[in-house]
Amino acid sequence: MTVSILRTADAWWVHTDSGAARINTDAATTRELLADRATIDAAAESTDTVPVGSLDLLSPITTPCRVVAQATNFASHVKDVGRDPSKTPLTFFRKASGSVTGPFGDIVKPDHVTLLDYEVEIALVVGRELPVGTEVTEANLADFVVGLVLTNDVSARDVQITKAQFFESKSYPTFTPVGPALVLVDAEELKRFGDLRLRLSVNDEVRQDMVVQGDILFPPVQALQALAKFQKVDAGDLVLTGTPVGTALTTHGIAPKGDMDLGAFLSAQAENNPNYLHDGDVIEATVATDDGAINLGVQRNVVVYK
Amino acid sequence: MTVSILRTADAWWVHTDSGAARINTDAATTRELLADRATIDAAAESTDTVPVGSLDLLSPITTPCRVVAQATNFASHVKDVGRDPSKTPLTFFRKASGSVTGPFGDIVKPDHVTLLDYEVEIALVVGRELPVGTEVTEANLADFVVGLVLTNDVSARDVQITKAQFFESKSYPTFTPVGPALVLVDAEELKRFGDLRLRLSVNDEVRQDMVVQGDILFPPVQALQALAKFQKVDAGDLVLTGTPVGTALTTHGIAPKGDMDLGAFLSAQAENNPNYLHDGDVIEATVATDDGAINLGVQRNVVVYK
Repeated sequence: MTVSILRTADAWWVHTDSGAARINTDAATTRELLADRATIDAAAESTDTVPVGSLDLLSPITTPCRVVAQATNFASHVKDVGRDPSKTPLTFFRKASGSVTGPFGDIVKPDHVTLLDYEVEIALVVGRELPVGTEVTEANLADFVVGLVLTNDVSARDVQITKAQFFESKSYPTFTPVGPALVLVDAEELKRFGDLRLRLSVNDEVRQDMVVQGDILFPPVQALQALAKFQKVDAGDLVLTGTPVGTALTTHGIAPKGDMDLGAFLSAQAENNPNYLHDGDVIEATVATDDGAINLGVQRNVVVYK
Repeated sequence: MTVSILRTADAWWVHTDSGAARINTDAATTRELLADRATIDAAAESTDTVPVGSLDLLSPITTPCRVVAQATNFASHVKDVGRDPSKTPLTFFRKASGSVTGPFGDIVKPDHVTLLDYEVEIALVVGRELPVGTEVTEANLADFVVGLVLTNDVSARDVQITKAQFFESKSYPTFTPVGPALVLVDAEELKRFGDLRLRLSVNDEVRQDMVVQGDILFPPVQALQALAKFQKVDAGDLVLTGTPVGTALTTHGIAPKGDMDLGAFLSAQAENNPNYLHDGDVIEATVATDDGAINLGVQRNVVVYK
């Protein structure tokens, strides 16, 4: 059985069948909390609960932490942005963890950004130090991945496409909603990663709806094998695993030619594509297996133009 | 007068006219050290010194820290890699701080890397928290930049060009030699940033030799203004400011066409370009004003093929 951890400004909680049970801990960070699994499990057994709806939930991942993300990792999305999945390598970029906001926080568009986009993603939550040089295998994967959390890799497409490096365009404050729950999974549950369905709607219109298996290019074991070649991660760090088709960004109907001017491409996106996020838009995202055995909860954020 | 700080495994030092004077501090990190400027200045006045040559110097910047870097920031380099400086935006990427090594450490090529390259760069050393939203100006720049340090942004060009995102290709362990000295500068000295000459040789053959002014596209004030839009930095973090012409990577003579196959381009680099780093190569880099008023010292690293 998975264990769903919630966080408020002054406490950590386990989401049990009867409500939210407070965890008896002084942990200030996700890393510190994860170091005391027995205390988490004790709360999971508790019947002394409060309604989850009464809690003002924050990201269950505290910052600063490393936020490493896989680019172009679902075939459907790769094709949708005009690339060939068979020629797309496993690629990482970094997001500033200052971009993390809560599961119900506002997503604030910086003034200069013109093409604001969403990407529902599953993040791996690292459970213990994974030094460079570690050999990661299917057999030891669950030693390093302690849980999963729902994230949105919000992206300023005009900045991303102009600058080519993804770092800035995905790192503005509030550009990474995280939560509601840090869902601890065991080795058997982690094997069901492929059964997870990612879903995102804008103002109740479904934009993204895809099951991982059959679409993901480089699943978690390959991601951590690649990461272990160059980037140490620690307990409490996040590895975002990519997004499927359905982002506002698409080249279908407005395909850039090899030599198409960037400015012309961005203008075409701005003029012909109504799917970029507008002031007041409500984004709702979920990730779960269809049988509900693993459920990362519901994330809901409102877009605010500064 | 600048103050040059050195670090060994068990102590911090100021490089004075008579040698290295130990700083009376328990600081474990660069950030902690910078918080006590009076102690640093006291050591700078000391005549109780040891020969600098007797010290086994480490990076004067401790890790973990943020390592943010400007891409394509010198016109000469931008042209050399086939791009138009007038169309090149101010662009950042991240390096893992696990890539930091000492000023005389080995640069270790990972097995799978085929095109190992160097980039001499000046790093700004952040002196105090610079939150997102800070207004950085010429007048307050020195409040945030406490010093400068010589770095080498070692790059696996085959990985960089294949994956497009720079993060992995520049983040392998030992890919960021830092030091020897963290050179503290005051506001007047910082204004001479443009007078600094970057120089790098491989086996005594000069490969890079350029003065900042007249070649840099986005100087430090613009860099921090842009960074303050999305990425908080703290005391002890690094902002690398880019490299001039002279890297092994060049498109001159082996220019990629718009549609040139990446594989063909990389093969051409490997076959026709002898300047990539080989096992045993000795890299020596310096950064200083021609009048010696600001001198970041000499960095010397040997390339080791694993």
